[in-house]
Amino acid sequence: MESLMMDRQLLLSSLLWRTERLFHDKKIITRIGDGQYHEYTYREYGRRVRKLANALGRLGVEHGDRVGTLGWNHYRHLETYFGVPGFGAVLHTVNLRLFPDQQRFTINKVADEVLFFDPDQLALVEELVDLGIPTVKAFVVFGDTVPETRLQNVHAYEDLLAAETDEFEFPEFDERDAAAICFTSATTGDPKGVVYSHRGMVLQAMCLAMHDKLGMSEDQVWLEVAPMFHCNGWNIPHTALLQGSTLVLPGVHPQPIDYVRMVSDLKVTGMNAAVTIGTLMRDAVHSSGRDWDLGSLQTMWLGGQAPSKAIMNWWAEQYGTYVTQGWGMTENTPQICFSAIKSTLRENAGDDELLALRQKQGQPIPLVQIKILGAEGEELPWDGESVGDFWVRSPFTASAYYDDERTAENMVDGWFRTGDVGAIDPDGYVILKDRSKDLIKSGGEWISSIDLENALMAHPKVREATVVNIPDEKWLERPLACVVPTDDSLTEDDLRTHLAVDFAKWSIPDRFLFVKEVPKTGVGKYDKKVVRSLYTDGGFDAVEAKLG
Amino acid sequence: MESLMMDRQLLLSSLLWRTERLFHDKKIITRIGDGQYHEYTYREYGRRVRKLANALGRLGVEHGDRVGTLGWNHYRHLETYFGVPGFGAVLHTVNLRLFPDQQRFTINKVADEVLFFDPDQLALVEELVDLGIPTVKAFVVFGDTVPETRLQNVHAYEDLLAAETDEFEFPEFDERDAAAICFTSATTGDPKGVVYSHRGMVLQAMCLAMHDKLGMSEDQVWLEVAPMFHCNGWNIPHTALLQGSTLVLPGVHPQPIDYVRMVSDLKVTGMNAAVTIGTLMRDAVHSSGRDWDLGSLQTMWLGGQAPSKAIMNWWAEQYGTYVTQGWGMTENTPQICFSAIKSTLRENAGDDELLALRQKQGQPIPLVQIKILGAEGEELPWDGESVGDFWVRSPFTASAYYDDERTAENMVDGWFRTGDVGAIDPDGYVILKDRSKDLIKSGGEWISSIDLENALMAHPKVREATVVNIPDEKWLERPLACVVPTDDSLTEDDLRTHLAVDFAKWSIPDRFLFVKEVPKTGVGKYDKKVVRSLYTDGGFDAVEAKLG
Repeated sequence: MESLMMDRQLLLSSLLWRTERLFHDKKIITRIGDGQYHEYTYREYGRRVRKLANALGRLGVEHGDRVGTLGWNHYRHLETYFGVPGFGAVLHTVNLRLFPDQQRFTINKVADEVLFFDPDQLALVEELVDLGIPTVKAFVVFGDTVPETRLQNVHAYEDLLAAETDEFEFPEFDERDAAAICFTSATTGDPKGVVYSHRGMVLQAMCLAMHDKLGMSEDQVWLEVAPMFHCNGWNIPHTALLQGSTLVLPGVHPQPIDYVRMVSDLKVTGMNAAVTIGTLMRDAVHSSGRDWDLGSLQTMWLGGQAPSKAIMNWWAEQYGTYVTQGWGMTENTPQICFSAIKSTLRENAGDDELLALRQKQGQPIPLVQIKILGAEGEELPWDGESVGDFWVRSPFTASAYYDDERTAENMVDGWFRTGDVGAIDPDGYVILKDRSKDLIKSGGEWISSIDLENALMAHPKVREATVVNIPDEKWLERPLACVVPTDDSLTEDDLRTHLAVDFAKWSIPDRFLFVKEVPKTGVGKYDKKVVRSLYTDGGFDAVEAKLG
Repeated sequence: MESLMMDRQLLLSSLLWRTERLFHDKKIITRIGDGQYHEYTYREYGRRVRKLANALGRLGVEHGDRVGTLGWNHYRHLETYFGVPGFGAVLHTVNLRLFPDQQRFTINKVADEVLFFDPDQLALVEELVDLGIPTVKAFVVFGDTVPETRLQNVHAYEDLLAAETDEFEFPEFDERDAAAICFTSATTGDPKGVVYSHRGMVLQAMCLAMHDKLGMSEDQVWLEVAPMFHCNGWNIPHTALLQGSTLVLPGVHPQPIDYVRMVSDLKVTGMNAAVTIGTLMRDAVHSSGRDWDLGSLQTMWLGGQAPSKAIMNWWAEQYGTYVTQGWGMTENTPQICFSAIKSTLRENAGDDELLALRQKQGQPIPLVQIKILGAEGEELPWDGESVGDFWVRSPFTASAYYDDERTAENMVDGWFRTGDVGAIDPDGYVILKDRSKDLIKSGGEWISSIDLENALMAHPKVREATVVNIPDEKWLERPLACVVPTDDSLTEDDLRTHLAVDFAKWSIPDRFLFVKEVPKTGVGKYDKKVVRSLYTDGGFDAVEAKLG
């Protein structure tokens, strides 16, 4: 029996309908310099989004065409977030941190018709044209003027908008149509494209606005540190529009001290960022020598990997900030889990137990189903002990990579193999152990590099630490630790003694290399590939020479 | 361009997946006597829901078949909420408060195959069989045993479940398939059927769990006073399961003092009920002569019509309880708006302004679009002044009544005419003036019966008041007030003086009838039809004779 309900589609433009009417006076604030901000209301935002939609039509963009951006987090980039999918085209946010050849690859792969970019990316865009991006027929510079350039058919963003009216009726179409595309790096080979739906992005925004999840609310002033060129900015802009929250964007080339200043200047109440940002902001506070008032900051959502207990405690003690986390990936629009402590667990937990619970990656968000499979493909129990591969499914999980043979490896029988390994406890809390490729198999036993990293980073004299597997004749694999000390007095023996409290002797790394910085991926995660390939090329010396 | 996302359906069974795994230890508590409760966990709930699904198959129910219930709010009824739609059948909650002939009509209209009922409804069910409900092939009594009856093919609910295993794989099907049916009373003619989708009910639950809406959360102990036979219990059970909240059900024939006792016994934190319940609970507290500790009750959501300022203040002052409201109807699954005060409005508002804002019906919830149309069908501005007909659309708004010619009057061009009249302020807050049929047109001027009722109920000596339009030779219509005084000393002149502060002379009723009780509809709203028809039949005397 069919229901008799309206077949209204979940489109991103329906979020904008709310924001413009109900939250017209709320603001979007972009950092444009030290203590200098551009701000306007959601009403003005809506008008400009409509002008942009008209401009897309004039540029010859049609329903379903791809439109690329190379941009930082700012209001013009945010206008493309709703203008492009609202128009019915597909927003491809090119990752600023990929190599130019990978960027060229992604642009050609999805055949972007127009490319919007920030003025500071001009040299890069010229390089991309030299490398060959033949589908791009027009370029738009996010700004008032077109700089000196050898690019053809270039427009200034503000000129484009000035020529258009703010009347535009957002078209209605299937909620399963593509709204956006992001690429995710692969262990080997080219980046893999994920094609998001309007439906999935609207549903994710609703989840992030729910109690016991991120719980974004209207009265929040939210700082979006996570780059808008990565996983649609974790879907935070969409959630802010849905809820009418004040949205703060850090602008071009932000540094850790800029985030500190923004929290202080604008009384930011919540922010989301890669896990390293929590540490870098702490260090920036220290090295600034100033006494910042960051007491407005209630929530700091750190993603990408688990924040350490040390960083959770530092923020809580200094400013009363609650550091929270989840687990997500490009293929899941992006959240899979979010950390929230169930009342029945909270009731009887001491401080340490609570902190341990907060170290877990949380429970699956609504609409997400998860399972762990063992080596033989058998489903493992949720006992907090049995470790296997995580598989997920939901209305916002990728069913395929765009035109990519690697789909077959990862999307099987309606489930997506996340590539992460770990356990699930009896209350459904996910405990990530590792990327499957980062688990260390030493003498037939598994060693979790994440457990070692967390333990090392809990040492007061360690700023960053990563652990990678290196080949070993006797044990097949052994762990190697690269550590950034805060202090020259730290020794290998200190670390060995520190780890011996919680780890069996055989699981403690044989070598600890002291380095200046741990290499990071484009999205701020520790880049173990770089460490491994340095080691492969030249052993310990090569790692120390390059990173030390 | 199509997205590449999994086509996972929004099914009610997907909510249960969460509850069983993540909130297995949380409880459902049902009142079974004075201070006596039945309680079990969501884990046990899930097992019984699966047994019920198996039992439905054994009874010969097939996908899409209708299954009726005549039940109070209790755990067995709640099991049908997920067991029936989870199985793929359609739950028709027959309204206990309709007349038997109307109940018979609704059962025959949708052709219920099985009818579940509470033991205290046995005589009614026998009467229904006498009246004729030929499609019903089996009866199930919510209990351990089958009472003496002349019904054929009757089962005890517990016997049915005992015979089944708790293994059942919930089928996957289109989210637009019917999940439930409720009937709504019509001004004239038979009740009208609304056929709900899985999709719409899942989306509503997500909305009710969002911050700045109801915001139901895991740590709440929620008392579901609104009857489960009315609008799917306002979708509250589904939201509780989604969020893992403790759910408290008041059982058979609850009285206002029972709600008071449950709040006190179980430390209830939130509840939803018809607006009269707020007053009746207050009166029950008073007349009990006991000093109840109701301080756990943070949220009292009163629906059906706006709670008075007097009741909002009483609960805030006595127990710190925040009385909130919204606007909904059977045709909208059911919420349209929910009251939440935008931070920018809260900042500058004094207590009185805040209370005035809370008297409005709130902003549209996510995914709902709303408009007001004037007499000529022109769209009216959101200025808080222009009064017209409210129209809404959303993925959970009815597109038609079930097999009913009245669809054509109410569902036009993809919008639903709500039948309510009012204005929208510049921030999107809905201000209900009246049902269109209840507005009083006197001498060419509109008088709002709701405004008069609210003003009358703000008088300290008034318990209940309703205002209806009666025909008048000179003015065409005039308002008539029926008032339940708390005290014999109240006079017509007192009321006239009281109203004269805020109302023009011509809009004040000519007659105030003092009555013992205002007649109410099956869902607890003031039943103006009854007052009007008494007046039509025999004038003021008839109203006083019947109600006085």
